[in-house]
Amino acid sequence: MEWIEGGVTAPQGYAAAGVACGLKKDGRPDLALLLSEKPAASAGVFTANQIKGHSLLLTQKRVGRPVRAVLVNSGNANACLGPRGDADARAATSFVAETFGLAEEEVLFASTGVIGQPLDLAAIRRGVLLARDALGRHGGPAAAQAIMTTDTFPKQAAVRLAFHGTAIRIGGMAKGAGMIHPNLATLLGFLTTDAPVGSEALGLALRAAVEESFNAVTVDGDTSPCDMVIALANGAAGGKEIEAGTEEFSLLVAALTEVCQALAKMVARDGEGATKFLTIVVRGARSPAEARRIGRAVGVSPLVKTAIFGADANWGRIINAVGNAGVPIDPGKIRIELGGLLVCQDGAAVPFAEEKAKAILAGREIEILIDLGLGEAAATVWSCDLSYDYVKINGSYRS
Amino acid sequence: MEWIEGGVTAPQGYAAAGVACGLKKDGRPDLALLLSEKPAASAGVFTANQIKGHSLLLTQKRVGRPVRAVLVNSGNANACLGPRGDADARAATSFVAETFGLAEEEVLFASTGVIGQPLDLAAIRRGVLLARDALGRHGGPAAAQAIMTTDTFPKQAAVRLAFHGTAIRIGGMAKGAGMIHPNLATLLGFLTTDAPVGSEALGLALRAAVEESFNAVTVDGDTSPCDMVIALANGAAGGKEIEAGTEEFSLLVAALTEVCQALAKMVARDGEGATKFLTIVVRGARSPAEARRIGRAVGVSPLVKTAIFGADANWGRIINAVGNAGVPIDPGKIRIELGGLLVCQDGAAVPFAEEKAKAILAGREIEILIDLGLGEAAATVWSCDLSYDYVKINGSYRS
Repeated sequence: MEWIEGGVTAPQGYAAAGVACGLKKDGRPDLALLLSEKPAASAGVFTANQIKGHSLLLTQKRVGRPVRAVLVNSGNANACLGPRGDADARAATSFVAETFGLAEEEVLFASTGVIGQPLDLAAIRRGVLLARDALGRHGGPAAAQAIMTTDTFPKQAAVRLAFHGTAIRIGGMAKGAGMIHPNLATLLGFLTTDAPVGSEALGLALRAAVEESFNAVTVDGDTSPCDMVIALANGAAGGKEIEAGTEEFSLLVAALTEVCQALAKMVARDGEGATKFLTIVVRGARSPAEARRIGRAVGVSPLVKTAIFGADANWGRIINAVGNAGVPIDPGKIRIELGGLLVCQDGAAVPFAEEKAKAILAGREIEILIDLGLGEAAATVWSCDLSYDYVKINGSYRS
Repeated sequence: MEWIEGGVTAPQGYAAAGVACGLKKDGRPDLALLLSEKPAASAGVFTANQIKGHSLLLTQKRVGRPVRAVLVNSGNANACLGPRGDADARAATSFVAETFGLAEEEVLFASTGVIGQPLDLAAIRRGVLLARDALGRHGGPAAAQAIMTTDTFPKQAAVRLAFHGTAIRIGGMAKGAGMIHPNLATLLGFLTTDAPVGSEALGLALRAAVEESFNAVTVDGDTSPCDMVIALANGAAGGKEIEAGTEEFSLLVAALTEVCQALAKMVARDGEGATKFLTIVVRGARSPAEARRIGRAVGVSPLVKTAIFGADANWGRIINAVGNAGVPIDPGKIRIELGGLLVCQDGAAVPFAEEKAKAILAGREIEILIDLGLGEAAATVWSCDLSYDYVKINGSYRS
C-alpha cells in the first residue's frame, strides 16, 4: 500500500466539483458533487442522534444499492424543518438526476451547517449547474474544500494497493471541526474506490474501518443530526469481485481503515479552536472496547482539554476522567505518562520535573499514555485541546 | 418554612470556623471546621467516580454513626497519593480529635483541590489550632468562605421550620465551580440541622434532597474523586425523634430539599467562568428520570453552552442534545421555547424575531423549555454558559 496524491477522485472512474452557490454568506464554496462514471456499490454509516436531518434520512433510504452521484452542501443542515425539509432533499437530488440523466434513486445527498433554516433550493440549482461545468477527474480537492464549515483546511487522503496483478485505489474526503464524537456515524466522510466490491461487502468494510477511525476521534462529545460516512465502489480497476472473508477483502479493509484514520486524525487536528493534537493511547485493558471507552472519556473531558491548552501537567484530571468512564478499573494499577514522562504509577503521584512536563505540553503533538494494568487490550483515540477559540467559534456560529 | 440568615451554624448547637493555614499559595482561607456540641447523627452521599480521594474514603467509612466534627480543607484534594494519602487523612482527623477531646471516629474529613500533591500536615495542624481559637456560633460564613476553590462567592442557605410547637432549623454550605455534574454525590455540600433524627432516616432524607438539587445541576460533566454531601443532625431543637415515613419526616425532606436546591443553584450560577444562569425545564416526559436525563444532556453540551454565552438563538443545538441524550423521543413532537419565545414546534423550526431572541439571550437568567410531548413527567436542571473564562481558569488551575 502506498499513499498517493488527491482524495475522492484519486480512484479511477470518478469526477468531482466544488463550487460556491450562495448558501454561505461569505461566498466560500458550499456545494460539492461527486459522480461515478458507472453505477457504484454504496454503503453508509449514519448518526446515532435520534434527531436526523432530512437529507440524511433520504440518503439512508437510498444507500446500499448502486448509485451514481453524491451531492453535498455546507452552510445549511436541512434539519428540523418538517415535511418541507424532506421535499427539499428530494427536489435537490431530482435536479441532479435531471441534469446528469440519472435515476433519482442513484443520487445521495448530505447537508451540513445550521439547523432549522430552510434550504435555498434556487441556490442549490444554480450550484448544480456550476458543478456540471466544473466537474472533472481532478475535482477532488475542490470538493473537499466545498464541504468545509468551520474547518480551517480541507481533508483528503488516498492510497494505492497492489492486488494480484492489478491495482486498486481508495480515496476520501471529510469535514469535521465541531460536533465531533464517536460511537456514531460522526461528521461527513466520503470514500471512493475503484475496487470491484458489492454493496454488502463494502458495508462490512466501511463499518470496520469507521470503528477504528472516525469512531476513535472526539472533539466535543456532540453528534449532529447530519453526520454520515459514505463509501462508493465502482469497480473501475477491473478484476474479480472481492468477497467478504477473503484475503483480498482483509487487504481492502486494512487500506480503507488507513485512509479513514488519516482523515479522522485531520478532523481532530482541526477541531474547532484546536492548538494541540492529542493522541490518547489506552493499554492494559480487558477489551479494545473498554480501552476505547476510556480513551474517549479522557479525550472529551473539558477539564483535560483546557489543562492541555494551558500546558498544565494536571494529570489528576486524566485519572479523574478514567474513573468516570463507566468501565470497571483498579485505581491502584493505573500508570500515566505524558509524552513519555511518568507522572502516575500504581494510581499514585510520581515526582517529576515540572519544567520537563511544561516543555512536553508546550508542543503541538501530545501523547497521553494510560496503562490500566488489567489485561492485554489497547486502543488509540485522537482529540484536541479546548481553547478560547472554541468558545469564540461556537458563541457566534450562526452569525 | 421561612428563610433565615446564615448557613451551617444557623441551627442550634453548632459552631464553625474558617481560617487560612497556608495550603493555598495566595493566603486565602483554606481550612474549615464544623463542630456539633452534642454527637450528631450523620449521613453522606459520595462521588460515583471510581477514583476516590483518601479523605473521602475515610469519611465514607465513618459516616452513618454519631459524629462531632467535620474538617474541610481546600487547595489540596488529598487524592492519588497511595498509602501516604490514607495515613495523612487519619493523622489530620486524629489531630482534630486530640485538640477537642473527641474520639477519632467522630471526625469526618473532606478535601478539595489539586490531585496528586501530598497534604501539608504541618499546615493542617496549624490550621486546626487557629480554628479552635476562631470557633464560634456565628462561624458559618467564615467556614463557607474557607471551602471555596475557584468559587467567586461563598454559598450558604438556611431555613426555619415550625414543627408541632417546636421549631427546627436546617443550614448548609457548598462549594462548586468546576468538575460539577449530577448523578453522583457531586461537589462539597455540608448540611446541619438541629432536628432530632437518626442517621438512617437522615440518610434517606439526604438522598431524596440531593436527587432534586445537587444531582440536577451541571457545569462541565466532570465529577471529582472528592465530591461529597454530608448532613449532620444533633437534635438540639428537642422534641420527639423524627421517624422515616411520618408527616414530620416529609416536612423535613421538603425543607432539606429547598436548602440543597438553593445551594445547588448558587453552584450553577457560580460555574467556572459563567456569565449566565440557565434553567432547563423538561416537560412532557414519560418519567422524571428521563426528563432529568434530557435536561442534563442539554445543560452539559459545550455547543449549547457556548451558543448561550454568545447570545446566539441556535436552538438546533438544543434539539441536537435532546436527540443524543439516550432517551427514546419522538422528534416530531418536540417543542422548544427560549425565555418564553417559541422557536421550535413539532420538531420543526418556527419563524421568530431574531432581535427578540437576542434580547432574551442577552439576559443573565435564561430559561430553556423543552416539551417532549410524550407524557406528564417533568424535571428542572440548572446550568450555566461556557465562556472564555472557563478556558482561562482551567488552563492554569495548578499554577
